[in-house]
Amino acid sequence: MNAAEDELDPGEIGDIGLVSPQDFHCPTPFEFENGQSIEEFTLRYETYGHLNSDKNNVIMVSHALTGNHHCAGVHSIKDRKSGWWNSIIGPGKPVDTNRFFVISVNVLGGCSGSTGPHSTNPKTGKNYNLTFPFVTIRDMVRSQKVLLDHLEIPELYAVIGGSMGGMQVLQWAIEYPDFVKRILPMATTSRQNTQAIAFNEVGRQAIMQDPEWLEGNYTEEKGPNVGLAIARMMAHITYLSEEGMDRKFGRRRQGGKINEHTFDIEFEVESYLRYQGASFTNRFDANSYLYLTRALDFFDLAGAYESLDLAVSKIKSRALIVGFTSDWLFPPAQNREIVLAMLRQGINASYVQLDMDLGHDSFLVESDEIFQLVRNFLTA
Amino acid sequence: MNAAEDELDPGEIGDIGLVSPQDFHCPTPFEFENGQSIEEFTLRYETYGHLNSDKNNVIMVSHALTGNHHCAGVHSIKDRKSGWWNSIIGPGKPVDTNRFFVISVNVLGGCSGSTGPHSTNPKTGKNYNLTFPFVTIRDMVRSQKVLLDHLEIPELYAVIGGSMGGMQVLQWAIEYPDFVKRILPMATTSRQNTQAIAFNEVGRQAIMQDPEWLEGNYTEEKGPNVGLAIARMMAHITYLSEEGMDRKFGRRRQGGKINEHTFDIEFEVESYLRYQGASFTNRFDANSYLYLTRALDFFDLAGAYESLDLAVSKIKSRALIVGFTSDWLFPPAQNREIVLAMLRQGINASYVQLDMDLGHDSFLVESDEIFQLVRNFLTA
Repeated sequence: MNAAEDELDPGEIGDIGLVSPQDFHCPTPFEFENGQSIEEFTLRYETYGHLNSDKNNVIMVSHALTGNHHCAGVHSIKDRKSGWWNSIIGPGKPVDTNRFFVISVNVLGGCSGSTGPHSTNPKTGKNYNLTFPFVTIRDMVRSQKVLLDHLEIPELYAVIGGSMGGMQVLQWAIEYPDFVKRILPMATTSRQNTQAIAFNEVGRQAIMQDPEWLEGNYTEEKGPNVGLAIARMMAHITYLSEEGMDRKFGRRRQGGKINEHTFDIEFEVESYLRYQGASFTNRFDANSYLYLTRALDFFDLAGAYESLDLAVSKIKSRALIVGFTSDWLFPPAQNREIVLAMLRQGINASYVQLDMDLGHDSFLVESDEIFQLVRNFLTA
Repeated sequence: MNAAEDELDPGEIGDIGLVSPQDFHCPTPFEFENGQSIEEFTLRYETYGHLNSDKNNVIMVSHALTGNHHCAGVHSIKDRKSGWWNSIIGPGKPVDTNRFFVISVNVLGGCSGSTGPHSTNPKTGKNYNLTFPFVTIRDMVRSQKVLLDHLEIPELYAVIGGSMGGMQVLQWAIEYPDFVKRILPMATTSRQNTQAIAFNEVGRQAIMQDPEWLEGNYTEEKGPNVGLAIARMMAHITYLSEEGMDRKFGRRRQGGKINEHTFDIEFEVESYLRYQGASFTNRFDANSYLYLTRALDFFDLAGAYESLDLAVSKIKSRALIVGFTSDWLFPPAQNREIVLAMLRQGINASYVQLDMDLGHDSFLVESDEIFQLVRNFLTA
């Protein structure tokens, strides 16, 4: 059999290549955790690999705050960038698409094709904007379950993801204990901590106090791009680490300048940050950013289930949690305490702490150590 | 002798009480490190205690980014807040005004009475705004030396300060080695690190992209208050620690609300931050914030003197440097390495690391441990 452009021989090793997103349209209402409803919704998703006849080889990949469904492969042969977790997903890779059927879904409330505040409310013909119901991590997971039911998938071999993705992973295992066989959350927390709420609040204020925000009713042409870029620049710092930033940029001067003092870009790290801010406004919706950061802030397993122990006691999956020493957004201790609670509850759980210097974003790094852990956990 | 309102009996223990700032007007030009000049300048300062006849009991207190000259006592008996380091300065306190003559100066480039971007340029009759020369930490120290010369003070018994104050302390000892006898920098660094530059840059962008900034030419009535508040909220998080914020606020809900999801204030920490942002705009000038953060960014002793060892080799003062375990803005390692370099250069230097959970701002806390260290270092 010759490999077509968007298909690969079983046994082949390499990148997935061309992939296409699909839309699942659910024509029936979805009720959010807070009681509000929308009449219908769409989830955009991608799949890689093939569903086996027993339908027991499905791996769900959950994305972080500003990620989306496109986690592997490219959308066109001209794409310079692959999906956000291309290094780990593909034929012969740790999440091996020769063996597993991988599915990744843009979250409800997102802005990459799934229904969110930027979508048209069929009742009014206008964007939802701030009339969109408040989304929780549990709402994201429950809406994805509707999609899996539609696809007649009877169980998940594994759910894997980092950061907000890790929160979804935990919620999957708690909400659907018999459905989920393995979970692999990384760089995550069981409850958004005070500092993380604080940073999110500053980002939201930057957006909401931007005069172009207009109470969320900005137009396609204009929007709170200044505020959104500020929010992104700040958040981006929290995804890195001082050690990693120092190694990557140090105090290197932009264009080799010396002894100039201006408020323009003087240091390379400033140029990097401004680029991160500006490019973000081209791919992310400001209202979505408000909703998804609020979903993070309200994530609190101990609060929702009386205690962390009671929350994780529902879990039947095997679990491996990975924390990163240099992650100061969701530090190792917050990852570790989840495993401790699981072990107290007799759940088959393990914890690994990796000493990488890229901060919270370490889970996205090409690392043989991560690759081997993921591969072994998924095949053992 | 009866104590007047602004004077205290020697031997008395307690607060300084009423104090009045003074203005030193220097009618001759001041040349900044970058070659630019201003024709005249003013420094606002306060003094506490009495200069002895040998004039060898002077302690200079250097302030941090958003501090000023008012570090002890009150300006009016109605003042609810004392100066920013009132806990440590006063009769019988660790910086004992019964014994020492304390002087504290608002930095050049500041906005609490000393000449800065908000001041009137005598040549034009208008505010300097962005035509004000770029200020460095060294410029701050050199301008303060002009004041001390004017006061005919022949030496400093000690210079003490935290954060940007600590940078000034180090610069004092390097610039005027024979003049400075003891230095006590806290929670500081010998070179602004990448992450700190990055946070400053986000703050500056928030100000400079505020439509009311007007290239720095905003009016008294209006100004980039939204941007300045955003900058302050973000910076304020970097002065605390996750542990301290968690202890102080946790996930406590504002007004005891439960299960509401809005973009208003939902968590107590959000209310606290918004207050910090809003109140800051009443007391700080946005252009000053730009200039002083740039002064921080350009502080780099290793860069300015070829190496940190060469920089500190000039020092003749005794030194005690205090770092705080929970300070992630200028972490312990950055304080420690200064002492290590000093010891390599044969300087009488010591390092203390205190395990307090209030982050960078720990140096401002009322702590018996800090009090005793300061008292002993100043009297030994």
